[in-house]
Amino acid sequence: MTQKVALNAPVLRKNDEFAAENRAWFAARRWTVINLMSGPGAGKTTLLEKTLPRLATRRCAVIEGDMQTDLDASRIRAVGIAAHQINVNSCHLDARMVGEAARTLIAVDPDLLFIENIGNLVCPAAYDLGEAWRVTVFSAAEGSDKPRKYPKMFLQSDAVVINKIDLAPYCDVSLEELLESVRAVSPRAAVFPLSSRTGEGLEAWVEWVAAREVR
Amino acid sequence: MTQKVALNAPVLRKNDEFAAENRAWFAARRWTVINLMSGPGAGKTTLLEKTLPRLATRRCAVIEGDMQTDLDASRIRAVGIAAHQINVNSCHLDARMVGEAARTLIAVDPDLLFIENIGNLVCPAAYDLGEAWRVTVFSAAEGSDKPRKYPKMFLQSDAVVINKIDLAPYCDVSLEELLESVRAVSPRAAVFPLSSRTGEGLEAWVEWVAAREVR
Repeated sequence: MTQKVALNAPVLRKNDEFAAENRAWFAARRWTVINLMSGPGAGKTTLLEKTLPRLATRRCAVIEGDMQTDLDASRIRAVGIAAHQINVNSCHLDARMVGEAARTLIAVDPDLLFIENIGNLVCPAAYDLGEAWRVTVFSAAEGSDKPRKYPKMFLQSDAVVINKIDLAPYCDVSLEELLESVRAVSPRAAVFPLSSRTGEGLEAWVEWVAAREVR
Repeated sequence: MTQKVALNAPVLRKNDEFAAENRAWFAARRWTVINLMSGPGAGKTTLLEKTLPRLATRRCAVIEGDMQTDLDASRIRAVGIAAHQINVNSCHLDARMVGEAARTLIAVDPDLLFIENIGNLVCPAAYDLGEAWRVTVFSAAEGSDKPRKYPKMFLQSDAVVINKIDLAPYCDVSLEELLESVRAVSPRAAVFPLSSRTGEGLEAWVEWVAAREVR
């Protein structure tokens, strides 16, 4: 779609300026920022619910992005973590929204800030939010073809979480297939097969998160 | 995102013109067109693989939309149905792409044409393709909050398929919750809970599809 790309170029350029401002602002405060992206229902919020209580050495906060509802922010607050909900009629968060949301968390002063992006495997990949780390989550129930079909997001990720591995046997997909499919598209990413529901594999993921620093 | 909406307004207007042309073109040929939308991995292609062989009274064809790969078109052809693959660096199909793809199917002259949109619960909802019927698919593994969180696509749908209901027991979600969540957002849609994998519930869906006409 040449037409749309051309029209969006100034939007993306403006976004990159806001992202650079965010990055400097985060660095000055030593906030390490992780941008969590996935299609709808891959399990980002449940992953955060299980991860946050295990990050005792870090002071955490979350920015939640959704088109509608503040269900996700409520779920994060229920595990005792500060959360700011962004509701926006858009298919992705942008750097300006995140910059504004971050200001509401100054009193919390997190040293680890998660941004849970809007559920979409396509558009969020194009929008730098000023984060230090990018993580893509996908679920075993989505099938092993997803990394190849939506390569941009996987290519740019520092880590890929393969969630819901407890469902793999009921989805006719093996863990090996899932791992190979990720490695083919994200050779440099740390890969974490896990189940937020059963807790399997969570430990390695939590360790990786706990070790993130501003960069 | 006022800025993006403003920039996209001409794109959407132009798309509506192409969609109106498509609709007239389809109607003149008596092609009944169904636009199938979902997030990534909800199971649109598998649903088509199971549905197409059961539509013996109709002459079918499929337009497949993906960012990358022609995996889906190959799967459709493997069940003996003509399929045209669109690969596009975009988060949705638009009416112009569909109009061009439809021309490649003139020799097939389908009386039932499925368009499998790009896996995304947000952007495809804004793009009229000239279809007669809109169907949203989501998977029990995505959780019952999806209709409320992505209401636009569900609101506009003539039918909603709740796929992978065989996974519900492993996802701590009941069929009642899933049905209620759809009915709350899509009161006018026909709702089909089913499992493409086990075949449960397929019959009612196939009957609905088989009865679709140009309108």
